[in-house]
Amino acid sequence: VNTFTRWDDDFVEPTDAPRGHRRHHVVVVGAGFGGLAAARALADAPVDVTVVEPNNFHTFQPLLYQVATAGLDSGNVAYAVRGIFRRQSNVDVRMARVVGVDLAARTLDLDSGAVIPYDSLVVAAGAVSTGFGVPGIEEHALPLKRLDDAIAIRRHLLDRFERAAADPDLVGDGALDVVVCGGGPTGVEMAGGLMELFDKVLRKDFPTLPVRRARVVLVEAADRLLPPMSAASSRRAHRTLTRRRVEVRLGVGVDRVEPTRVHLADGTVIPAHTVIWAAGVAANPLARIVGTETTRGGRLLVEPDLSLPDHPEVYAVGDIAATAAPLPQVAQPAIQGGRHVAAQIRRRLAGLPTEPFEYHDKGSMATIGRLDAVVDFPGGRHLGGPIGWMAWLGLHLVYLMGFRNRVNVFVNWCWNYLTYDRGSRLLGEAQREAPDGSSESP
Amino acid sequence: VNTFTRWDDDFVEPTDAPRGHRRHHVVVVGAGFGGLAAARALADAPVDVTVVEPNNFHTFQPLLYQVATAGLDSGNVAYAVRGIFRRQSNVDVRMARVVGVDLAARTLDLDSGAVIPYDSLVVAAGAVSTGFGVPGIEEHALPLKRLDDAIAIRRHLLDRFERAAADPDLVGDGALDVVVCGGGPTGVEMAGGLMELFDKVLRKDFPTLPVRRARVVLVEAADRLLPPMSAASSRRAHRTLTRRRVEVRLGVGVDRVEPTRVHLADGTVIPAHTVIWAAGVAANPLARIVGTETTRGGRLLVEPDLSLPDHPEVYAVGDIAATAAPLPQVAQPAIQGGRHVAAQIRRRLAGLPTEPFEYHDKGSMATIGRLDAVVDFPGGRHLGGPIGWMAWLGLHLVYLMGFRNRVNVFVNWCWNYLTYDRGSRLLGEAQREAPDGSSESP
Repeated sequence: VNTFTRWDDDFVEPTDAPRGHRRHHVVVVGAGFGGLAAARALADAPVDVTVVEPNNFHTFQPLLYQVATAGLDSGNVAYAVRGIFRRQSNVDVRMARVVGVDLAARTLDLDSGAVIPYDSLVVAAGAVSTGFGVPGIEEHALPLKRLDDAIAIRRHLLDRFERAAADPDLVGDGALDVVVCGGGPTGVEMAGGLMELFDKVLRKDFPTLPVRRARVVLVEAADRLLPPMSAASSRRAHRTLTRRRVEVRLGVGVDRVEPTRVHLADGTVIPAHTVIWAAGVAANPLARIVGTETTRGGRLLVEPDLSLPDHPEVYAVGDIAATAAPLPQVAQPAIQGGRHVAAQIRRRLAGLPTEPFEYHDKGSMATIGRLDAVVDFPGGRHLGGPIGWMAWLGLHLVYLMGFRNRVNVFVNWCWNYLTYDRGSRLLGEAQREAPDGSSESP
Repeated sequence: VNTFTRWDDDFVEPTDAPRGHRRHHVVVVGAGFGGLAAARALADAPVDVTVVEPNNFHTFQPLLYQVATAGLDSGNVAYAVRGIFRRQSNVDVRMARVVGVDLAARTLDLDSGAVIPYDSLVVAAGAVSTGFGVPGIEEHALPLKRLDDAIAIRRHLLDRFERAAADPDLVGDGALDVVVCGGGPTGVEMAGGLMELFDKVLRKDFPTLPVRRARVVLVEAADRLLPPMSAASSRRAHRTLTRRRVEVRLGVGVDRVEPTRVHLADGTVIPAHTVIWAAGVAANPLARIVGTETTRGGRLLVEPDLSLPDHPEVYAVGDIAATAAPLPQVAQPAIQGGRHVAAQIRRRLAGLPTEPFEYHDKGSMATIGRLDAVVDFPGGRHLGGPIGWMAWLGLHLVYLMGFRNRVNVFVNWCWNYLTYDRGSRLLGEAQREAPDGSSESP
């Protein structure tokens, strides 16, 4: 009962409360790792926080590949933003896209037409997939950056298998074959997950198809997999993937992509009806809208304290920010950056000078499918095999938002582990138009 | 290891095996309760079975309202058809829609262009939502019959709340209000689930909105709720819903629906941005394609043994079949009918005459939200309250397909029960075009 009175209509100001902010107003753009960390770290600060996010959910990006390979339901890797901040009374959530930033007037224009003022602004809009201008990528390759992307990959893969089951001639044309472009953690995890899905699940679901001969080709332009990790981890990933029948192609780039063919830079043509693009991200286009100086990848150049030049009240964190020393584009720098800017906002409110951001490397890891993963610790030590996999599993479970998701993810994983089954292989969850004709998708 | 050798490429005929059927070939159209029951009951019969279903999954329709009210993920109420039949080696699955039936030639035309022959045909394509020609239903009301429908309702509801949070003027226009048309089990469960979602979840997610004043109006043309159930169950459902603040309007039909208004036959106009249509179903249009005699609701008239007149090799079961004595349009008649026709196919193969179908009434039930449900047993006894709810819960868990789903549904329910939280409130899982431009949705 006590929980409810707090939100009782009689206690809470009616619907115009968020409009007239009397307290310092912090607007956080983006509910990824960086934005959530910043908003949470302001829980007991004398500020009002508005989180602006075009989706109504946070996406746990490190597990998107599991949704793409039908190991997890989409609900397992996404969590309602309003649920996350339910108990943090100084946070308001706006489901909207930022379409304009007026740094002089300190206002944001939302796609809904609303204009919201800020006293401090945290830009944490993350990155988007980019094809770097490689011909055919935008049109024919499937990125893996958003929840929608993962669902689209799953749907596409299963659809090709269903089509091949109905028309076996498609098999020879590459209907069952997949090319994964990019040998970073996303590409490695995707390739490993795909082979597992093929060998343990689809082979049983489609007994009439030669699933064992389906190809998964992993293409990486550098001379080793997982370029940011240790050489030992690269070798282990290469060895494990190869043993699991993934064809690894190193030192060659993608020249162009056609609907059912991938042309490599060395002239090789790989027939494949599914091409997954995990080879590049660029900063969210919001960086250009902000209008201050950006790097070649479109990221916002930031001062040592993560504020924008000449705008100490505006900060950028995570994949959209370019620090002097480049940081890996994973969760940790975003989380630490979000906490840092929350602290700087408090310091400025208290009349104190800001402090430079220091990134604490906690290591990096990538899973290579069932019971194998590689882990690099700071300082040069590394770990692999089943113990690495257990470490990877535990860490991701701990970091996943919310108890419910953790339990469900765990149930799904146990089930997959024990049975080699994948429950999430549903096709045809189509988007519908709203009855009034407007699109429901933000 | 042993499990896999069975499906090994070296053992299974390659891709053309399902084409040249030497054994009696049974085609089952539809993977709902009736179709699954028929195909499963033919497990050890000397026949080959092809299940044709436009989705690649079975939908557990009794729990769709839970998906619509964000209590369950879509994956909890759907199960891959190929997974269901993985261990039944005489079943082949085709993801396709039947677009033509040639009863003389004994062939089906699929939307893929394929033509498949049958020796016996089981038509189990179920029902579709129909507005009975009420103006505005098709355009502005949301049905609740398919998995897509449930996802669309959830998305629509949450979107209205997000819009109202951004523009409080919408509240007075009915942005938070819902009209549920139809007081049968679906309407009653939907209304109860909605009020629970509002009171326990959205009120906390949207503290600035007057969620406690949001209306759920349940409209039923008959003079009581749950018309097919006992008067005692009707009264209890009415009492419980009213106590939970659902406005029940009996004895009045829906005149027409506008985008944000429902006009009742008595002249009442209810502002509501969400209108859910649970007032009517008609037979799947496939019944017309079959071409034999149909009833006013479009259902196929069947002989006492569930075969079609003059076509003893063609059967219809479940919601698409019209027996002499009408049967409730729920799971049990479909399941029993599916088993019955499987037995008749066996009898005919053995040279025996067919037997008439006898429906065994096992009672009916409807839940009215948390901790309350009504159960009518055959013979006139009935049950309500928490014990009825436990019975409802146990029965549905037992019937849900597959262990994995059962565990996940149970986890979700426990979580909802303990926390009043709903995890599945994600917006924006949009459908994507396939990279080659074709739609992925079957």
